[in-house]
Amino acid sequence: MLIHELTTAQCTEVLARTSLGRLACARAGQPYVVPIHFSFDSEGPGLYAFSTVGQKIVWMRENPKVCVEVEEISDKNRWTTVLVFGRYEEIQDSPHDAATRQRVWESFQQRPEWWLPAAAKLPSQERHAMVIFRIHIDRLTGRRAVHERI
Amino acid sequence: MLIHELTTAQCTEVLARTSLGRLACARAGQPYVVPIHFSFDSEGPGLYAFSTVGQKIVWMRENPKVCVEVEEISDKNRWTTVLVFGRYEEIQDSPHDAATRQRVWESFQQRPEWWLPAAAKLPSQERHAMVIFRIHIDRLTGRRAVHERI
Repeated sequence: MLIHELTTAQCTEVLARTSLGRLACARAGQPYVVPIHFSFDSEGPGLYAFSTVGQKIVWMRENPKVCVEVEEISDKNRWTTVLVFGRYEEIQDSPHDAATRQRVWESFQQRPEWWLPAAAKLPSQERHAMVIFRIHIDRLTGRRAVHERI
Repeated sequence: MLIHELTTAQCTEVLARTSLGRLACARAGQPYVVPIHFSFDSEGPGLYAFSTVGQKIVWMRENPKVCVEVEEISDKNRWTTVLVFGRYEEIQDSPHDAATRQRVWESFQQRPEWWLPAAAKLPSQERHAMVIFRIHIDRLTGRRAVHERI
């Protein structure tokens, strides 16, 4: 098994074709990690996601430093992991952010694989209860293992 | 889709039949999350794992507070997540910890699915370069989504 470091471009490719990751945040030295679905936007570049206001949103509002981990596992000898080190930024429910909010919401609707929770089915009048946020990407790292036949 | 909170016993069952999780640690407010393989020991209770000395070991030696996330996903409507909030404890390479270290090492050898990295294949004289550690479990939480047929 050989392990390669990925280039930034290779990391970006993985993010673009993935939608499930694990988001870690921290408060007072205590980390917290949960699965999230996201939509990668190469324009930002950033990861967009939404959530009801719960522990992770409260923690990220207090400390915006986060880490997102994404995996592609074929088997024990062939896998890729990408880490995003970034910052939590909330897309406000304001006229200024309305266009961004609408565009992000539409990108979420296009993803059939949402599973946590069924918030995409909320009627539009309840959307204001959802927080839409961006993980601004400060740094990307990735590793890929390939099986070496002898 | 209905979401249930899991009891501690149900969380423990998930840990006992799983070996892949994501470990989050933090330094100076910056979280870091990576996949790990672990072996659950109900005696402790704790999660046992090993690693070469890299970023996560350096960080956990400095701040032992960690969070481990484990998933079982059937599909978008049927999934279970378990979170372990705990503390990093190193199993020392000392006569005092020799028996624990040997027992843990043997439990690792029984797992065919190790994939990150191929450290289980290290010859015995190189095992001292590996850190064996326990995540002492302070608190367990879990949620399970089940699909509700109408």
